Amino acid sequence: MQGEPEVAVLRLGHRPGRDERMTTHVGLTARALGADRAILAGDASKSVETVEDITDRFGGPFAVELTDSPRQVLREWDGRVVHLTMYGERVQDVEGEIRESRADGEPILAVVGSQKVSFDVYEAADWNVGVTNQPHSEVAGLAVFLDRLFEGRELEREWEGASHRVIPEETGKTVVPADEE
Amino acid sequence: MQGEPEVAVLRLGHRPGRDERMTTHVGLTARALGADRAILAGDASKSVETVEDITDRFGGPFAVELTDSPRQVLREWDGRVVHLTMYGERVQDVEGEIRESRADGEPILAVVGSQKVSFDVYEAADWNVGVTNQPHSEVAGLAVFLDRLFEGRELEREWEGASHRVIPEETGKTVVPADEE
Repeated sequence: MQGEPEVAVLRLGHRPGRDERMTTHVGLTARALGADRAILAGDASKSVETVEDITDRFGGPFAVELTDSPRQVLREWDGRVVHLTMYGERVQDVEGEIRESRADGEPILAVVGSQKVSFDVYEAADWNVGVTNQPHSEVAGLAVFLDRLFEGRELEREWEGASHRVIPEETGKTVVPADEE
Repeated sequence: MQGEPEVAVLRLGHRPGRDERMTTHVGLTARALGADRAILAGDASKSVETVEDITDRFGGPFAVELTDSPRQVLREWDGRVVHLTMYGERVQDVEGEIRESRADGEPILAVVGSQKVSFDVYEAADWNVGVTNQPHSEVAGLAVFLDRLFEGRELEREWEGASHRVIPEETGKTVVPADEE
């Protein structure tokens, strides 16, 4: 979030066609839950388009980009790397350390895989973190991790440059032009 | 979770083929993050198989079932209904009430849609809840909702009847037979 060390999400292992929706959901979840940027590895241009379209309509700042070299992104990251994996340490045990390192000024790169993630990612990570040690969903793991990293503050963030805004309400679906408050 | 009022997840609007992975991720997220049961509307038999297979290997109790009549499930639910939608009230504003009603003994049915959800679902819900009022992912919304509903206790649950167990560790991927501790 703005005025704080950056949080970026690196999505590994995108397979065009098969992973389109999951990768899009990773990007949209990163945006909605307080990350500053999503970096999508491989041929994920459709997912980039969708996330950019949502950012145009519902606001930012949020950046989304492609990379052909996720290993280089990992290697050159100037901050800490958190790899979300069901094999990692329990999120409830390490989230405090991760928050502290960010409070000390370290940007965080949160890495989420698709299917198999190669072992060098485990080695490159400062923390391998399991949101449960159960198989479920990289989107769910990312969401819980971000909500805990930001301790819920991400739910209060303001959106800039939006053309549309949803009015939260008990029963209804109300979207208004963003300047009509 | 066991010994508490039931939490079930109803997945609406499954389209075979197109939604297979998202529906599977909804089911696996429900299981991993403390729900007792997933009810999948429509022809989601492949997702049921995957969730059952994971439950056989990694433990339960967790139930997954199909329904042809999601409206009937909603109508006949003996407890409270929470519909997760970007148009709803802010989760941070209503999660306390929802937790209290469960503490008073009410089972909770958490409803997640796919694309368009018809307006009668909004009307049938006791709460329409937005995990942000931004478009992102039903899997992410469900994950954050469950983590907040259970206040993180779901991360400590024990699994019964598992054949395999993951050992959380700093760097590695270790799965052991469940009885080898």
